Amino acid sequence: MRIPLERRAVGGGRVPLSRQIQSHLERLIREGKLAPGVKLLATRELAHDLGVNRTTVATAYEELIAAGWARAHVGQGTFVAERVPALAEPAPISAQKLDWSGFLSKRAQVVAADMHRRRAYGQLARPAPGTISFAGGMPDSTLFPTDAFRRVLNRVITQEGRELLQYYAPGGYPPLRRYLAGYLLRFGVEARPEDILIVNGSQQGFDLVARTLLDPGDLVAIEQPSYPRAMQVFRSFGAALVPVPLTEAGLSVPHLERLLERQTPKFLYCQPSAHNPTGLTMSLAVRQRLLEVAARHRLPIVEDGFDGTLFYGARPPGPLKAMDMAGLVVYIGTFSKILFPGLRLGWIVAPPALIERLEMAKQLADIHTSPLLQAAVYHFCERRLLERHQARALREYARRRETLLDGLRRLMPPGVTWTETAGGFSLLLTLPEGLETAALLPRAQARGVTFTPGDAFFIDGGGERSLRLSFSAVPVSQIDDGMKRLGDAIRDLGRHPDHAVREPELSVPLV
Amino acid sequence: MRIPLERRAVGGGRVPLSRQIQSHLERLIREGKLAPGVKLLATRELAHDLGVNRTTVATAYEELIAAGWARAHVGQGTFVAERVPALAEPAPISAQKLDWSGFLSKRAQVVAADMHRRRAYGQLARPAPGTISFAGGMPDSTLFPTDAFRRVLNRVITQEGRELLQYYAPGGYPPLRRYLAGYLLRFGVEARPEDILIVNGSQQGFDLVARTLLDPGDLVAIEQPSYPRAMQVFRSFGAALVPVPLTEAGLSVPHLERLLERQTPKFLYCQPSAHNPTGLTMSLAVRQRLLEVAARHRLPIVEDGFDGTLFYGARPPGPLKAMDMAGLVVYIGTFSKILFPGLRLGWIVAPPALIERLEMAKQLADIHTSPLLQAAVYHFCERRLLERHQARALREYARRRETLLDGLRRLMPPGVTWTETAGGFSLLLTLPEGLETAALLPRAQARGVTFTPGDAFFIDGGGERSLRLSFSAVPVSQIDDGMKRLGDAIRDLGRHPDHAVREPELSVPLV
Repeated sequence: MRIPLERRAVGGGRVPLSRQIQSHLERLIREGKLAPGVKLLATRELAHDLGVNRTTVATAYEELIAAGWARAHVGQGTFVAERVPALAEPAPISAQKLDWSGFLSKRAQVVAADMHRRRAYGQLARPAPGTISFAGGMPDSTLFPTDAFRRVLNRVITQEGRELLQYYAPGGYPPLRRYLAGYLLRFGVEARPEDILIVNGSQQGFDLVARTLLDPGDLVAIEQPSYPRAMQVFRSFGAALVPVPLTEAGLSVPHLERLLERQTPKFLYCQPSAHNPTGLTMSLAVRQRLLEVAARHRLPIVEDGFDGTLFYGARPPGPLKAMDMAGLVVYIGTFSKILFPGLRLGWIVAPPALIERLEMAKQLADIHTSPLLQAAVYHFCERRLLERHQARALREYARRRETLLDGLRRLMPPGVTWTETAGGFSLLLTLPEGLETAALLPRAQARGVTFTPGDAFFIDGGGERSLRLSFSAVPVSQIDDGMKRLGDAIRDLGRHPDHAVREPELSVPLV
Repeated sequence: MRIPLERRAVGGGRVPLSRQIQSHLERLIREGKLAPGVKLLATRELAHDLGVNRTTVATAYEELIAAGWARAHVGQGTFVAERVPALAEPAPISAQKLDWSGFLSKRAQVVAADMHRRRAYGQLARPAPGTISFAGGMPDSTLFPTDAFRRVLNRVITQEGRELLQYYAPGGYPPLRRYLAGYLLRFGVEARPEDILIVNGSQQGFDLVARTLLDPGDLVAIEQPSYPRAMQVFRSFGAALVPVPLTEAGLSVPHLERLLERQTPKFLYCQPSAHNPTGLTMSLAVRQRLLEVAARHRLPIVEDGFDGTLFYGARPPGPLKAMDMAGLVVYIGTFSKILFPGLRLGWIVAPPALIERLEMAKQLADIHTSPLLQAAVYHFCERRLLERHQARALREYARRRETLLDGLRRLMPPGVTWTETAGGFSLLLTLPEGLETAALLPRAQARGVTFTPGDAFFIDGGGERSLRLSFSAVPVSQIDDGMKRLGDAIRDLGRHPDHAVREPELSVPLV
């Protein structure tokens, strides 16, 4: 550790070295740069680093302890106190400090504007204790096969640790790419292992596709509503979004056709199965029609696989990629919904000419995805543990969905409508004319229930009466209660639509 | 699995279903979409998926086996053969297929041009057996504390598995951010945990900084030579690179000053310690002078920490970030050199106004870095296992460096010069006037030694006589032999500079 020390006498005399050390450490603690609970260097080590006597350091530490900045644990050393005397505000930025706001790229400004606008929605409401949360959109971590995963991780690190902890080929772990080729074939998607690029979740898939295809001013056609983080990343590369309305059977192809007569989007982004937020499925007829229109207009399609395996009732038609004779479709898949989001593991399937470019973009983005995690997931899948987990999770999610739909039918006031979710984790609910979600949220939270406001899923306005209910992470036993509270909050809003309620507190990323 | 079947008689009669299934699978195998060794679905499962009789599928499988496309393992099932009869060329792209080259962004075109130009260098030479390789630039994986890491990984997944496998906050795992605040303080860098953003290795650090600060047409000042992947990512965001020459004491500040009188780069990228490829250290005087000049011109600095802990002989001066009074410096650090590159784990330290923007960019790039790996590395460090590993690895690398420098002094022909590497994994060697690296490489490989050609580290030309020797992954016992072979190859080139030798084969990413 380095502490600047004044060793010569200045003016009336030198400040003792122990006092200089003490002030320096005190400032670091006060400014949060030495965090509560952190162990200070042993006196011997710090004395050595600074070239001072050990007792000088010991004196400084004793003073810190006496003033409440640190505490000693016998035999363990000296630690920064958990609660420090009076944490001063951080020092105001001096005029000398660089003002970074003048240095930001256009992209950074677009991103910030988008994030601030969506502030209330780009983050999940942090529920008070006892709140039933239909926000989220993540799998239920209590269903995670954590221990089975620990065992495969142990095995791969023991057997292949050296290779998996070293730099690796950017395309991905070859056995995982081979496994995915076989996995995708079950859905009719034909891809060679080398047509598959491993990425950090579908979000990185969107990002690499955007880098590789979008220039500022390009248009991207997109279902309305759609997944906010995909919209944001396309916008951050300078694209303008053109909405295509969604029907119960998927996006409106006639609308898209009219759009293509006037405009030339660089690509269409869509979620044909397990659509987030609505849970709707694009019908086979719409898929076929969409592919015909796209082929005629040479419109590339970025298909967010989200997960076609998370379906309730009838199995969805195969992915667009499986029917893509014209080489138009880029398919993005992820393990985040069917296994563990925290691994950040997904993949892109694209025609060879494009996958080569995406792999170059991946190398510049972060060289490659952790091969250790790739290998662990491969062995997990190879032992059929994914299938077992999926079957179990799907049974549970199906019960939650059924309970939610049943609760909605019984407990919602008249005029409230919702999408009949057939896949994924959520549905979209619409309030009666005249009621707005922004006014509902604080009332709902006051009654102990929360959700994701719907306008985050719409492009520049729209969706003010809608909200997303995710059922994946709510135990069956709480769903009815949650719907009662939500129904009451809606009725209350209907009676007093203008009564102001304070904004709720927020946290965590939106997925 | 889906196989399109024609169930009605067409013209002269229907092709038997078993034959249709067989041809479909045969095509998938021939095209590499069912990879060698992959297990075919059980006959019962495929029959169920297709709605046919189980014996129909069994017949198809028997035909595949008879023709050599598959093989049966008693009690295990049917597998795609490891060697298939005659792998046809992939079908030529039909005129109907989309030509993606017309859809690429400007960025993708810049990246591809850069990568193709550097083709020979963007990839490491794949050494023939027995070749001594000074290419690479990675830590020696035989030194990896793999088993100790396995144990901490086990522990964190047992104790915190559910949280670590779920979606997570984008900034990073809080204990790791706190640990890094303490770690950096040892080098004099003062940062609160919230001033530190966890990223996927320093490469993602460069990428996020580039997104956040660069617009097309911006200038980036950069040491010459420098790290190629940093250059590439800045270029991919439309920046033009302006070189600042490197001296034995670090970059030439007078040159930078003259440059700043005429031009306004968005930032300077530099590696003050353990510079890749030269191994040189920027002196304290140059650091101070650089910060003065940067403050006067309000020039932000992106400091690649690479790793100041990997030093030989005198400890390098503290990072620029530690002396940065004007809030100009963004510091990028990584665990890739001091621990495991394969984890892809690094961090950025930046002023609060900038770190907030970088975190937004991170969310769009891939939401967050795997918290499981972050937690494992945190516990690894917390138990002082990093320090133990570093001390051991540093001793070994120091011996290799010493042996290399000694070998160079004894075995290089007159006129060959090299940088006195003081840190990191490599040095830069320069051939005598008139000799070129491109001509040396094949000769060196023919003699069983290889290296990274130096022009990859220079901006648009330059470095044609230079080459990088990495000593980190070469056992001490082989270094002298390698230098003998290299010396012989250089002497041979000096005698026959015009003799053509065929290009070597290549692979793996450059680091």
